[in-house]
Amino acid sequence: MTTTVAAYATPAAKAPLERTTIERRAVGEHDVLIDIAFVGICHSDIHQAREGWGEAIFPMVPGHEIAGVVTEVGPGVTKFTVGERVGVGCMVDSCRTCDNCRAGLEQYCAEGPVWTYNAVGKDGQPTYGGYAKNVVVDESYVVRIPDALSLDVAAPLLCAGITTYSPLRHWNAGPGRRVAVVGLGGLGHMGVQIAHALGAEVTVLSQSLRKKDDGLRLGADHYHATSDPATFQNLAGTFDLILNTVSAPLDFAAYFSLLRTDGAMVNVGLPEEPVQVDLRSLNGNRRSMSTSGIGGIAETQEMLDFCAEHDVAAEIELIRADQINDAYERVIAGDVRYRFVIDTATI
Amino acid sequence: MTTTVAAYATPAAKAPLERTTIERRAVGEHDVLIDIAFVGICHSDIHQAREGWGEAIFPMVPGHEIAGVVTEVGPGVTKFTVGERVGVGCMVDSCRTCDNCRAGLEQYCAEGPVWTYNAVGKDGQPTYGGYAKNVVVDESYVVRIPDALSLDVAAPLLCAGITTYSPLRHWNAGPGRRVAVVGLGGLGHMGVQIAHALGAEVTVLSQSLRKKDDGLRLGADHYHATSDPATFQNLAGTFDLILNTVSAPLDFAAYFSLLRTDGAMVNVGLPEEPVQVDLRSLNGNRRSMSTSGIGGIAETQEMLDFCAEHDVAAEIELIRADQINDAYERVIAGDVRYRFVIDTATI
Repeated sequence: MTTTVAAYATPAAKAPLERTTIERRAVGEHDVLIDIAFVGICHSDIHQAREGWGEAIFPMVPGHEIAGVVTEVGPGVTKFTVGERVGVGCMVDSCRTCDNCRAGLEQYCAEGPVWTYNAVGKDGQPTYGGYAKNVVVDESYVVRIPDALSLDVAAPLLCAGITTYSPLRHWNAGPGRRVAVVGLGGLGHMGVQIAHALGAEVTVLSQSLRKKDDGLRLGADHYHATSDPATFQNLAGTFDLILNTVSAPLDFAAYFSLLRTDGAMVNVGLPEEPVQVDLRSLNGNRRSMSTSGIGGIAETQEMLDFCAEHDVAAEIELIRADQINDAYERVIAGDVRYRFVIDTATI
Repeated sequence: MTTTVAAYATPAAKAPLERTTIERRAVGEHDVLIDIAFVGICHSDIHQAREGWGEAIFPMVPGHEIAGVVTEVGPGVTKFTVGERVGVGCMVDSCRTCDNCRAGLEQYCAEGPVWTYNAVGKDGQPTYGGYAKNVVVDESYVVRIPDALSLDVAAPLLCAGITTYSPLRHWNAGPGRRVAVVGLGGLGHMGVQIAHALGAEVTVLSQSLRKKDDGLRLGADHYHATSDPATFQNLAGTFDLILNTVSAPLDFAAYFSLLRTDGAMVNVGLPEEPVQVDLRSLNGNRRSMSTSGIGGIAETQEMLDFCAEHDVAAEIELIRADQINDAYERVIAGDVRYRFVIDTATI
């Protein structure tokens, strides 16, 4: 038997979000019911609510940076008990049998994971995200939020945190490695903190020096403006890894020139429009270009534990639910330091 | 004191090659004089002779797949003695002090290596390649050709061999790994043999099945036509490594879809025109796109030893020097199995 839950949803593409109710499924054998305390606003919420990434399912309840408390568990649940502080990120299920799922790379599930919202679950019903009072999720796709992390600043770790942690780990950010983070927004401000905590030498490459003080405070060793051509001259051949958090088109050839031999430029922002790269600009020094998407469930838990241990969390601006539409405009304008988080008590 | 040497040169961009003479420098302290026996025709000879890659130096003596015999050594030479069978590839010098040079990656020298032709040497003089009777090269940029390899079939290893060997090694082609080689031309036919000898499961992806018998004979386990859309459906998510030897534009998104998680598409053909890739097509599975250029000197020696040990060599069509211009047209038409090699006795 489903339960009716208050939520914020957009009824159609590009329509404003408004308060409504949705149905959540009954708590099944392996499900946990999570009272959502906080939910972050990710740029991808906006991409999807406005159909920037293609046709979407409406009404849509966005939100995949979910932090809350378990209030009910199904009879088969073994990982969690009532009262535990937990998080849910971008996925709520996957096939569990493909090579990637078995390797803990559920985000690359061969059949595609079941996304937390704007997707269809295995029960054939649309999934609704975290801009809501609660959510029912299979325990295998739920992670524990360590006590050292407050739920509000932990929420954005479920997407922005893991999206930067996973590639930083995979491409070996650490001592002796030079990492550039392009863009100091929601993703970038997590990337800087995590790369620094991993021991890498961290450089922020941002359009201007406007956020330089923040960047250095967050752990960057260097901060350069990409609007200054000298940046590209001075930093030629410098980086082992460039983590690009900007989804707008860049002059990729210019960024490639900043890579050392075997350096990688990894893109974690997914643009709405085709981004054309001239293959020839990659030539020389075995440089590579890649993309990375969130992380697996076990890795998400590892990231949360890492953040708790290293005192890393999101810097947030807490908002009421009735401020969501304004917040969307401010995200698009880059006017947030560094993540809006909705206090779901206000839904 | 320079010596005058018979050679084939193109006097100006796009002009036919003709017999001429050039001056070689006197054999210096660390130089060896090599009587050239055979020299391969690489597609990049044509790119450069016709200024497809930009402004070039004329007259141009192409040729960087050089195999011959040492006939004189400078007083400081320690690696070689008169009578030894040796090869010279794409570079004849580099700065020797940058990180890449010291790491044996002279091909990625920070100052740029001195290319075997169409470049300016440290002495300020233009370099002339191997379509000539002899060449004078610093011993540090000369490699030994094992006795098991005939000089004629060894010559193409100096470019086509190392260009495929280096990325196959770097991206771990070997047992348990699935490697696709795109294109069965001069590079591709080396890539198939080397990947097979390294123990990988090798698939050729070629426009048609025209060369299928050759591909299987050279060591491919599978051979598919890229003109058949079923190829891309059936092979989705298959390869750890795609070695693209085709310099013409491809539908990169289609090839990316053939990569497994963490798979790499590595391009060794350098196109003359911009090749646009939509970054979004890389999304998912941490796939990467990269390029690779030849290999270092030590790695080139390693490749020659590997080829000798595994009975790998180029399949060639031996030509006279007066057939070079016709051969160029046939290379452009893809009408060669698989490398033209010039018998320099005919110069």
